[in-house]
Amino acid sequence: MEPKYNQVKNSIRSKILQGYFKPHEKIGSESELMQSYEVSRHTVRKAIDDLVNEGWIYKKQGAGTFCAERSVSSDAVSNGTKNIAVITTYFSDYIFPTIIRGIEGYLSANGYQMTVFSTNNDPDLERKYLETVLSGQFDGLIIEPTKSALPNPNINYYLNIERLGIPYVMINAYYEELEPVHLIMNDAEGGRIATRQVIDEGHKQILGFFKNDDIQGIKRMKGFIKAHRESGLQITPQNIVTYTTETRKKDPVERLKEKMKVRHERPTAIVCYNDQLAVILLDVLRDLNLSIPGDVSVIGFDDSFLSVASEVKLTTVKHPKERMGVDAAKLIDQLIREKEDPTVSKKASSIVYEPELVVRNSTKDLKIKEVN
Amino acid sequence: MEPKYNQVKNSIRSKILQGYFKPHEKIGSESELMQSYEVSRHTVRKAIDDLVNEGWIYKKQGAGTFCAERSVSSDAVSNGTKNIAVITTYFSDYIFPTIIRGIEGYLSANGYQMTVFSTNNDPDLERKYLETVLSGQFDGLIIEPTKSALPNPNINYYLNIERLGIPYVMINAYYEELEPVHLIMNDAEGGRIATRQVIDEGHKQILGFFKNDDIQGIKRMKGFIKAHRESGLQITPQNIVTYTTETRKKDPVERLKEKMKVRHERPTAIVCYNDQLAVILLDVLRDLNLSIPGDVSVIGFDDSFLSVASEVKLTTVKHPKERMGVDAAKLIDQLIREKEDPTVSKKASSIVYEPELVVRNSTKDLKIKEVN
Repeated sequence: MEPKYNQVKNSIRSKILQGYFKPHEKIGSESELMQSYEVSRHTVRKAIDDLVNEGWIYKKQGAGTFCAERSVSSDAVSNGTKNIAVITTYFSDYIFPTIIRGIEGYLSANGYQMTVFSTNNDPDLERKYLETVLSGQFDGLIIEPTKSALPNPNINYYLNIERLGIPYVMINAYYEELEPVHLIMNDAEGGRIATRQVIDEGHKQILGFFKNDDIQGIKRMKGFIKAHRESGLQITPQNIVTYTTETRKKDPVERLKEKMKVRHERPTAIVCYNDQLAVILLDVLRDLNLSIPGDVSVIGFDDSFLSVASEVKLTTVKHPKERMGVDAAKLIDQLIREKEDPTVSKKASSIVYEPELVVRNSTKDLKIKEVN
Repeated sequence: MEPKYNQVKNSIRSKILQGYFKPHEKIGSESELMQSYEVSRHTVRKAIDDLVNEGWIYKKQGAGTFCAERSVSSDAVSNGTKNIAVITTYFSDYIFPTIIRGIEGYLSANGYQMTVFSTNNDPDLERKYLETVLSGQFDGLIIEPTKSALPNPNINYYLNIERLGIPYVMINAYYEELEPVHLIMNDAEGGRIATRQVIDEGHKQILGFFKNDDIQGIKRMKGFIKAHRESGLQITPQNIVTYTTETRKKDPVERLKEKMKVRHERPTAIVCYNDQLAVILLDVLRDLNLSIPGDVSVIGFDDSFLSVASEVKLTTVKHPKERMGVDAAKLIDQLIREKEDPTVSKKASSIVYEPELVVRNSTKDLKIKEVN
């Protein structure tokens, strides 16, 4: 277990980072801290000494302990190199390395250093990395919000980042209430054109799998529903399968197996939240001795390397990936320059990428077959 | 504990209502059901017999058990009176009776019967009532979604309601992916004008309390942030307090006490998610011997009876309440007529009410004091 003084220390540090204490605001007396944390005076003193040594707080003889002034960019500026923090949900797999490569390429060519953190889509880890950013070593932040479809638990951290004047941009999704500069796909339109592809090929029973703790999933599902409606095709309710970060490895596979067991009104097409899920579901279909696209058509999303990795080349929706990374880096660079030099013309504004369908051979045109 | 056969029965019934089984689709064999529910043949038979008796499923000799065809409006139409289900989050308190009164007035004047359910903002209860609607006694549904800021766990039920051709409208909030006909306030604008009121009166430290499991809370918070930004006033991050349905009685009170303890940068104004919270916080302030608006200005939201119930008359934002109820009833009536008679001109469309500030005397103009 963590020593008690460390728990007290981390709690006070966390309150400073969240903005509970502002510079030169008094942090309760020793007795008050002893009471509120239910620890001994010795423990409180040890925590305070550490925080003083690390520059988080300072003591004034006879007056008590106060929150220190932290100047964010001074460290970073001192050696002339600017540091950008990049926080994504995932790091080393799927489309994330490509996005990060885009960011990295632009930043390093323009004299920035970059540090990448990944939250594994866990809000607690996001908080930890936001604390790191708030601790003052970074000049800017590029962040993909974690579990963006759920209420933002870290809003105070974001507001504190703004208060400290650290520019940030959000990628792939953003919290509406913060109205940050953002770079996103038009995911609803992506979901719509993917679904239209199989509807236009004559499919009537279409399964849709959507992750519903990220905004992208909600929007792609919206497009799925919209495509049905505009085609006058009634949605079979059980054909929409939602899953979360936690259930993503289990639920979609089980639900697909279940759906394919029943011969009556068996789906002939599947629209997937992303390519990553699509290749998992391809395996399930193969295990069931179903051919793609002969028996079942499958559409991915993102046009990642996975869409051409298997012997079935996936029809999918193009995600800007590397271009989004480059644009995010350009935007953060622009925001930093606007902040440092008020004469720089203000041109940092959000970008919405329109989706494009990449047609390969994972879907089958049922209307052509009928003609033969 | 619920008898096993009842658990099996409810599970199958629930699957029918969610659309897992469609009319005339086979419900697995006795052996399959025994296996998947891990119960005896006796239990499966008892569950099936009950479901057959209640008209949910039917048996065909030698072929198995099938989902029955349920015709939704036949029962309702038979006696000439149409039934509308109204599902709200709360029922007998706050602004809900007024909204329901508006609905009731219009519906009864137009020959409808109305049944009201309240979910207590619990998604499980919402599911239960949606099942009731799906079981076929209703011609239309007026619903306020439960915990609308969280991913919709009951989307299959809504889609099944659409498939059965039951018109529905959503009030106060709506799920974007469903794009339903809806009646809502412009909550972001409401949050903005409430906050502007105290900013324009010279307040700099403004506490905002927002419920973040309903979309209204997220939007009002968005307006709070926007008002600060457009006034060039930096938000103190810890001045935004979010809470949920579960923590609403405890968190805001504790956080307010905490904030008021520190004299340094004590908030001079409070913007509340709604009047209900405002009157609770008024009590806390009085207990702390703070006068309203002398020491602290307080703004409510909704212009409910509570805003004038205490001796402090609250400045607040007008919610359409009864008018929203009347309009919702008109819309559902219109949708039902459009459905029954294709020659009726299609004019049912969503309504967004623009907010209006009702200025009473719960805020203090700090600029006037400075002049004196």
